[in-house]
Amino acid sequence: MANSKYEYVRNFESDDRLLPSTWLVVRIDGQGFTQFTARHDFAKPNDVRALQLMNRAAVTVVDSMRDLVIAYGQSDEYSFVFAKDTKAFERRASKLATLLVSKFTAAYVFYWSEYFPQTRLQAPPAFDARVVMYPSDRILRDYMCWRQVDCHINNMYNTCFWALVNNGSVSRKDAEKRLKGTLAKDKHEIMFGEFGINYNNEEEIFKKGSVVVRRRELVDVADPSGAIIQRIKVTLETLHCDIVGDAFWDARPEILGGKHACALNQQEHASSTLE
Amino acid sequence: MANSKYEYVRNFESDDRLLPSTWLVVRIDGQGFTQFTARHDFAKPNDVRALQLMNRAAVTVVDSMRDLVIAYGQSDEYSFVFAKDTKAFERRASKLATLLVSKFTAAYVFYWSEYFPQTRLQAPPAFDARVVMYPSDRILRDYMCWRQVDCHINNMYNTCFWALVNNGSVSRKDAEKRLKGTLAKDKHEIMFGEFGINYNNEEEIFKKGSVVVRRRELVDVADPSGAIIQRIKVTLETLHCDIVGDAFWDARPEILGGKHACALNQQEHASSTLE
Amino acid sequence: MANSKYEYVRNFESDDRLLPSTWLVVRIDGQGFTQFTARHDFAKPNDVRALQLMNRAAVTVVDSMRDLVIAYGQSDEYSFVFAKDTKAFERRASKLATLLVSKFTAAYVFYWSEYFPQTRLQAPPAFDARVVMYPSDRILRDYMCWRQVDCHINNMYNTCFWALVNNGSVSRKDAEKRLKGTLAKDKHEIMFGEFGINYNNEEEIFKKGSVVVRRRELVDVADPSGAIIQRIKVTLETLHCDIVGDAFWDARPEILGGKHACALNQQEHASSTLE
Amino acid sequence: MANSKYEYVRNFESDDRLLPSTWLVVRIDGQGFTQFTARHDFAKPNDVRALQLMNRAAVTVVDSMRDLVIAYGQSDEYSFVFAKDTKAFERRASKLATLLVSKFTAAYVFYWSEYFPQTRLQAPPAFDARVVMYPSDRILRDYMCWRQVDCHINNMYNTCFWALVNNGSVSRKDAEKRLKGTLAKDKHEIMFGEFGINYNNEEEIFKKGSVVVRRRELVDVADPSGAIIQRIKVTLETLHCDIVGDAFWDARPEILGGKHACALNQQEHASSTLE
Repeated sequence: MANSKYEYVRNFESDDRLLPSTWLVVRIDGQGFTQFTARHDFAKPNDVRALQLMNRAAVTVVDSMRDLVIAYGQSDEYSFVFAKDTKAFERRASKLATLLVSKFTAAYVFYWSEYFPQTRLQAPPAFDARVVMYPSDRILRDYMCWRQVDCHINNMYNTCFWALVNNGSVSRKDAEKRLKGTLAKDKHEIMFGEFGINYNNEEEIFKKGSVVVRRRELVDVADPSGAIIQRIKVTLETLHCDIVGDAFWDARPEILGGKHACALNQQEHASSTLE
Repeated sequence: MANSKYEYVRNFESDDRLLPSTWLVVRIDGQGFTQFTARHDFAKPNDVRALQLMNRAAVTVVDSMRDLVIAYGQSDEYSFVFAKDTKAFERRASKLATLLVSKFTAAYVFYWSEYFPQTRLQAPPAFDARVVMYPSDRILRDYMCWRQVDCHINNMYNTCFWALVNNGSVSRKDAEKRLKGTLAKDKHEIMFGEFGINYNNEEEIFKKGSVVVRRRELVDVADPSGAIIQRIKVTLETLHCDIVGDAFWDARPEILGGKHACALNQQEHASSTLE
Repeated sequence: MANSKYEYVRNFESDDRLLPSTWLVVRIDGQGFTQFTARHDFAKPNDVRALQLMNRAAVTVVDSMRDLVIAYGQSDEYSFVFAKDTKAFERRASKLATLLVSKFTAAYVFYWSEYFPQTRLQAPPAFDARVVMYPSDRILRDYMCWRQVDCHINNMYNTCFWALVNNGSVSRKDAEKRLKGTLAKDKHEIMFGEFGINYNNEEEIFKKGSVVVRRRELVDVADPSGAIIQRIKVTLETLHCDIVGDAFWDARPEILGGKHACALNQQEHASSTLE
Repeated sequence: MANSKYEYVRNFESDDRLLPSTWLVVRIDGQGFTQFTARHDFAKPNDVRALQLMNRAAVTVVDSMRDLVIAYGQSDEYSFVFAKDTKAFERRASKLATLLVSKFTAAYVFYWSEYFPQTRLQAPPAFDARVVMYPSDRILRDYMCWRQVDCHINNMYNTCFWALVNNGSVSRKDAEKRLKGTLAKDKHEIMFGEFGINYNNEEEIFKKGSVVVRRRELVDVADPSGAIIQRIKVTLETLHCDIVGDAFWDARPEILGGKHACALNQQEHASSTLE
């Protein structure tokens, strides 16, 4: 074939398969979102429509890649966790990261008008992504903690900052100066004392971010003969709960435990038709 | 800060900066496009709307990343070439590939309705991407040849195949059988002899694919005082021409030559306002 | 400085730091040792002098790199395991592998005459090396099992093969044919039935290979004032024991447990002078 | 086979093949040589025996790896250049670097007594190595320049420094202070004015370092029938010449030009028996 003369250029492609038996996390991040949010009049400090759109895009991604076991998002970023033993795309770093960020971006634009019915999308947004390996369950959980604590810290700061700016008629620069070096306690005082904001009553989606997981439940279905049998139904849930403590993980052993973590999952294998 | 306890997880991120002084090519590829094209009734063998939408997305990408010197697309794939000496995103492989594929995907969905006004996008599409280094101009050109020759071979096959299927009432399976082992000459004969198709008269966009380049021209503009001065205006062109031979490259020394390839470019540096 | 003009070439060096919190194993392998052993008349199937020289070189290496927690060798190969949390040479793959193989090679040549007093070294030998990451204790142990089982399988085969050739006056080709497809049971029968060799009585160094570990013991020493205090003394041991089962590892929790695995080690930190 | 259960650990090995069509340079460096030279009473600023031993080891390496086209050494470092199109060991980074450093180290110890007949080697030395890719001839030459200019700068400094210390009865600390911030001109003046040393008359091996290349020449040999035919004889040369300018490279086009650089080489292919 005439093409063979040039096909040697394929030898320049490199093998980027990631280490087996490590957790693979793809984190995507909005690019130039300061400008993007300004251009589309996002509410400050949090725009719930924007967060829900992020969640919708994340659910689309998790739904399309079966080896994703959990995802966590806040602000304009989202982290997706592949099962430790995933063999998806041979664990090739570029495949996993690019396909995932492409699916996310496509869903973000595709569903935009559902969440912003009054706001025309001005220009296509963009996200970047990176994939990181984490060798143990503990380190993976620390990664998740890192993102949720980051959410907490940023949200408290932003809530306080925008209270000063929006309700307190303070310039952004002055608000920044005032908050410099303040502790959580100080911010609570400013919010409550000056603006009557009890931070603890803020919406969970702002304080905790969003967690996408698969929920598995046994349901009764009729088999072809009409007999009622039990099958597993998998649905995606979007939660706004603490993932730093043990409770969340203890209640969902299948996330870290892999496919065979619980009896329920065992059955799932025997009944993949419904799933 | 409370977060610092978890921040050690950043140490697991790896440095993926690519070798300096090599051409960086990001090639994106439609994922599951056989199904996607069927679902959206793309014309066969080529859907000119779909190709133009690909080109529109490519132009959006090239326009947004200044170090892209040329792009080439065909079917559901597109290759983007960064200048050999680009320092964009520190040449980090994941940044370049993910950001580019995200921009492309976003533009594809964003502009869909302009090219398919009658066809609602059913579900978000997805592309993957990889970045490859090419150490010399000759090898980069061979890469471009590889893709254009691939376009040519596939298009001739597909034109012949769909002539048999669409106009010849032959089943897909039989058409496949018939074409197995045929040479270009044989395909020309089938197309012309049986269907009156002169392949050479097919549209260039089908036979050659699409090339996106920057065109630089001197234009007269008025400076603040009203005096007429010359500035460089850069516009993006989408061409459907041969890039295997020397003519294309000889006529555009700035593509391989870098920013300082021609006098025109020199001036461009002194007049970045217009650009 | 005149040199700065050329110093840009350093930018082509890449960062090859390995993933934190993974076991790093450097395995070295003799290059062209079939010829090397023939040239120096190594005894077949095993030359105890050669194995002891390998062990001597391994001990030299372990002694010089404190983060090596265990090493295992057989035939012309040796595996060295760095502590999971080692920061030696910033975990740079090339540094770890090249320095280790260089130390090993130097020691091999340096100590040659001690183990082969009658045989002049004809030409310098060579080893290659690779470094591999293992993310969990279990996988690391499986790696060690892999090498020891390999030793066992090869040694049984070789013992049988050389019995046939050396004592049975069978050509190498015929011996190979005869052993093809035989099971362990068959080989035992050949060895015992035809040559009176009870494989179980073969030397442990041949059957099990060699394991280098650090032994820590409390010893009484006099401090500057003359008072007797206890310190930890670390010595290197070369063992020929099973490392597939749990017993070996249970008895030495400090190997997998890291520096703080046992109370003894805690103390070691407080008394680094002796060590 | 019993081993197969553990063989999965091979999947953790990674593919480290380097980019095709780039120059591969392996640079080795003495580890802890300040101590090593002190322990073996190396002459200061240069010990010609030590440099010749380095060269002997380098020649051994070049002789054993046919794709090495040139090597350059100074002080306790040596750079080895593989042909741009080498396929040696599939261009695997770890194989190339570890095997080369092992061969070098082995030769260094093996030949020690030839160059230091009066000095017993006290302990095995060690070298590390790294491999770097250079994408163009110009950048490769700049790499070589970098090393030779480094040699020049260091040697002038050291010659001046040790003149002060050895002949000038100045403490090392004071010598360091005196030289701080001095230019080449200043150092020339100190050497000549105070110690009568004309730096230009220093030995070339000190000022220029050492270059190992293959010399090819046509020689007459008798073929089996007794007829005289011409064959190419390849010998290794160790030079101490300038490699910054063009003259060296112009005179040896085969170094950068690859196997087919000159007619002489063409013939070499047809007559590989002698080589």
